[in-house]
Amino acid sequence: MSENNNPGRILLSLTGWAPDVWLKQLAETAPHRKTVVEPEGESDPSIEYAVVWKPRPKALGKLPRLKAIFSVGAGVDHVFSDPDLPDVPIVRVVSPDLTARMSEYVVWQVLDHHRLGPRYRQQQLDRIWEEDRDQPAASEISVGIMGLGELGTDAALKLRCLGFKVSGWSRTAKNVEGVICHAGSEGLDPFLATSDIIVVLLPLTPDTREILNKDLFARMTKRGPLGAPILINAGRGGLQNEADILNALDTGQLSAVTLDVFQQEPLPADSPFWAHPKVTVTPHSAAASMPASLIGPMVAQMDAHDRGEPLTNLVDRKAGY
Amino acid sequence: MSENNNPGRILLSLTGWAPDVWLKQLAETAPHRKTVVEPEGESDPSIEYAVVWKPRPKALGKLPRLKAIFSVGAGVDHVFSDPDLPDVPIVRVVSPDLTARMSEYVVWQVLDHHRLGPRYRQQQLDRIWEEDRDQPAASEISVGIMGLGELGTDAALKLRCLGFKVSGWSRTAKNVEGVICHAGSEGLDPFLATSDIIVVLLPLTPDTREILNKDLFARMTKRGPLGAPILINAGRGGLQNEADILNALDTGQLSAVTLDVFQQEPLPADSPFWAHPKVTVTPHSAAASMPASLIGPMVAQMDAHDRGEPLTNLVDRKAGY
Repeated sequence: MSENNNPGRILLSLTGWAPDVWLKQLAETAPHRKTVVEPEGESDPSIEYAVVWKPRPKALGKLPRLKAIFSVGAGVDHVFSDPDLPDVPIVRVVSPDLTARMSEYVVWQVLDHHRLGPRYRQQQLDRIWEEDRDQPAASEISVGIMGLGELGTDAALKLRCLGFKVSGWSRTAKNVEGVICHAGSEGLDPFLATSDIIVVLLPLTPDTREILNKDLFARMTKRGPLGAPILINAGRGGLQNEADILNALDTGQLSAVTLDVFQQEPLPADSPFWAHPKVTVTPHSAAASMPASLIGPMVAQMDAHDRGEPLTNLVDRKAGY
Repeated sequence: MSENNNPGRILLSLTGWAPDVWLKQLAETAPHRKTVVEPEGESDPSIEYAVVWKPRPKALGKLPRLKAIFSVGAGVDHVFSDPDLPDVPIVRVVSPDLTARMSEYVVWQVLDHHRLGPRYRQQQLDRIWEEDRDQPAASEISVGIMGLGELGTDAALKLRCLGFKVSGWSRTAKNVEGVICHAGSEGLDPFLATSDIIVVLLPLTPDTREILNKDLFARMTKRGPLGAPILINAGRGGLQNEADILNALDTGQLSAVTLDVFQQEPLPADSPFWAHPKVTVTPHSAAASMPASLIGPMVAQMDAHDRGEPLTNLVDRKAGY
């Protein structure tokens, strides 16, 4: 109980997000802990936990008594980009709320392509009344999910619920009911060759950086009822080679893409993606991390750790996610 | 077996649809029956079954040995509009394929409003990168389904799968797991007052004609995270008072609508719906009746009926659906 009488402080280090609502939630959820907002708290020995999104490089390495880092995003590439990252456990956020939001986005965008949203919106603009009598059923469409972690698995099951055929690909073998699971480099070709719509929910690691490139697109050989494959990236912008995506759209290797993430965010105003007729752009809004649903479990983990219990949802440093 | 040695003919009477693909499917599925396309077969005593979409008025009443009418659409208002409709059983289509397609459409449009599709598309046009940090989760949104038949029930369950709160309203009491079911005139106000998004899958009958009118909109009092209620009509155009819908959008009583059906179809080029910023128009494409999935069960019913077995999925003439 000694720790709970004088629990360590929390450092909040968020780039690009206003800290106010996070601070408020921390104050309500963890009244027993003080939270300071970076750049406050530099080298502060009373800080034991950091809650971060794209933390300022080298800031975490200066905290002498840091016990663990909590990422408020599902991906942790924003943590590993710090060259002086201290050797403490990194906890990823696993939140039913965040997972459900991502699945909403995935199902929304899969359905928007499958049900010809772009075509019907253009027809509305042109005042044209013309139904596509060849509309396939979901049961005729294979959706392939790249990345079968918490997010990919949930999205796969919800797409199954809507009647789609679903397959998945992951680095290590997974088993998801009703989903054809491929794994490793030898599983990639059969996965790519059978998918009408490919949804990317991979972590960004040295192995996956720019994995969405011309070589991969050339292996997406399925030509189903929707034509050439459709790509949906709701993972990280760093996964995609953007010149290769534009080229694949222009040559017809891909028939359409939805991108929620980009190499550079915000997407620059002169990006060719904005006005491309085959591109749907959303502003990294697929699955927002909501303080109200994330802070409670984080503080519970800090308290449990102080009582000597193990941390859960730990990042594998070697795998990079 | 006597009937099967000389089975009755089929009359195909479709308005607005090319009969070719239906004829082909009938020839493949029912090689033992001859099919004639209206206006052929007038008063033909060898015709025992009619397969219809908006049949030509008075044509069915002239067939002396007609045993049953099969509607290729889920709604049967197009049959009842014939003033000389003969007094034979009317069979509605109940097809897992048709039901699944309608649920795809409903989930697609619910998600498109819930996930701010119109807003993000406008931002893409304007090259604006701005996430809505107040995006509610599906679990914070109540979707109300008007009409809990085959279609409404399936859509309700699939919306539940995505995490939405779902309620339903129907003329007679229903019970759907996980769905708050309201019924009858006394159930309408509590249903309307608690729904953020209202999906209309009602049959068109004298009781429901123009039920979507200003009186109903005034009773939609919920003001949730998405603002004023959103209306999605994938039932029949005759359910809606179109002037009242436009007025409700202009006054803010409704925040947006998706209409797949209209009083007049095709929607006239001068309709104000086409260019209205709060209206999504689709060309009666929510759930197409596909010959390949519908004809088989119809022919099976005809053969069973000839063997003396009862018809199923019969329309209740008094209720009108």
